[in-house]
Amino acid sequence: MSRFLKLTLAYDGTSYAGWQVQREEATLQVVLEKAIEEFTGETLRVVASGRTDAGVHALGQVVSLQTDNELPCDVWLRALNANLPRDVAVLEVAEAPQGFHAIRDATGKRYRYVIQDGPLRDVFLLRYAWFVPVRLNDSAMQRAAQQLLGRHDFASFETSGSPRETTVRTVTDVILQRQAIGSAECLVLEIAADGFLYNMVRAIVGTLVEIGRGGQDPSWIDEVLAARNRKAAGQTAPPQGLFLVSVDYHGERGGRPPPECDPYLQTRLH
Amino acid sequence: MSRFLKLTLAYDGTSYAGWQVQREEATLQVVLEKAIEEFTGETLRVVASGRTDAGVHALGQVVSLQTDNELPCDVWLRALNANLPRDVAVLEVAEAPQGFHAIRDATGKRYRYVIQDGPLRDVFLLRYAWFVPVRLNDSAMQRAAQQLLGRHDFASFETSGSPRETTVRTVTDVILQRQAIGSAECLVLEIAADGFLYNMVRAIVGTLVEIGRGGQDPSWIDEVLAARNRKAAGQTAPPQGLFLVSVDYHGERGGRPPPECDPYLQTRLH
Repeated sequence: MSRFLKLTLAYDGTSYAGWQVQREEATLQVVLEKAIEEFTGETLRVVASGRTDAGVHALGQVVSLQTDNELPCDVWLRALNANLPRDVAVLEVAEAPQGFHAIRDATGKRYRYVIQDGPLRDVFLLRYAWFVPVRLNDSAMQRAAQQLLGRHDFASFETSGSPRETTVRTVTDVILQRQAIGSAECLVLEIAADGFLYNMVRAIVGTLVEIGRGGQDPSWIDEVLAARNRKAAGQTAPPQGLFLVSVDYHGERGGRPPPECDPYLQTRLH
Repeated sequence: MSRFLKLTLAYDGTSYAGWQVQREEATLQVVLEKAIEEFTGETLRVVASGRTDAGVHALGQVVSLQTDNELPCDVWLRALNANLPRDVAVLEVAEAPQGFHAIRDATGKRYRYVIQDGPLRDVFLLRYAWFVPVRLNDSAMQRAAQQLLGRHDFASFETSGSPRETTVRTVTDVILQRQAIGSAECLVLEIAADGFLYNMVRAIVGTLVEIGRGGQDPSWIDEVLAARNRKAAGQTAPPQGLFLVSVDYHGERGGRPPPECDPYLQTRLH
């Protein structure tokens, strides 16, 4: 009988044209489906909780699939990690309820965005942070970020053209703080919500950076929210600073990677 | 009057064909000389303490140059960092004694090599560590590494064909230990000597990994040293795990980057 599996993945998005299958470009979906086919002989379609864009990373992306293969989860884990390119790692393979679907069943997500600000740069963070060569006003940015908490219409933070029923989302957690990563004192935004619109985190970050540069007051974010117009907000921040941290399912934190699999959390814990 | 400057550089070597000028390939020497020319208008030749290979990184490479430009060192620092690609950073520009030469005057160097061992990989370390998918015996490797301390003929650890007067070098410090980097418990080798032969650190690491895998006893390293033959040693470890940490001049630590500029030291300090 066919069974459903839930995979938790980490990947460095630098070398990929995003998650979804594209013609003639390396995508994460393609390398995962190929690794599964090499192992099981089955040609499957996998479903990710969301399609990360080119250059975006994941610490705990969740993928669902249906398979006739009966081998235990730990065999799947080892086989997939042996078959996958080294910039993609499966952290966990677990049995899932019949019909489990990584997009439809997701009840929340958490993202992180890393900004390296200031005149001196840590050259080893360029693929994993947005380098802004001036020191930003983090307390102004943190005040503005707090205005995003709760239920709002986030239409101003959505790249247009993406299909969705509503642009209302509920932000359940948002924090922006300084954190030592490598040799840099980075600014790290963590944001959790019941769902995110297309490019929402990157548009929020672009808006916060505008405030951090002093071009706008923290209260500007209220005007941006009220406008319900993408043109009211700041630029879309570049992809390489963005990490999909975890995906929640039915109130449980489905895809949160254990602390020892989270490089930035590690840095904080030390 | 012409003056001599000493530059300390950090770079991510991933995208470069090494230090030295090569035809039609991006090298670090080329980008630095170009950044200087854009700023001063002078076409200079810079001299690095050593030519790092393609993919090798630096935390504190030292470069000497002679210039007629009279602007202060801090102006040089800002101008070069503005002109350089973002994966290269100048950490310090200092006046140097007349005739200062980064190769001839160097009295010692320190390298670091990072190995990520074990079945699970941190996908964000692939450009900055050698991934060995089995857990290595670090205490055997550390015992072997200690045998390298002191004055030895390191001919077995030299890629042949490189010009040098002698293959005798004095290793002044060597330590191999586990260290949390990102989500991985990496093995980090730090080694300092009065000088290094071509590919010496990478050949030492390849030999230590052979011991760590259990293929050889720690005492094998004495046989390898005694053989004075490159074929007696292990493979040459790949470039991306290697970092030039610092260069010493006349007993002083010339190129040691300050702790806040050293990502791995940071991780350790936290």
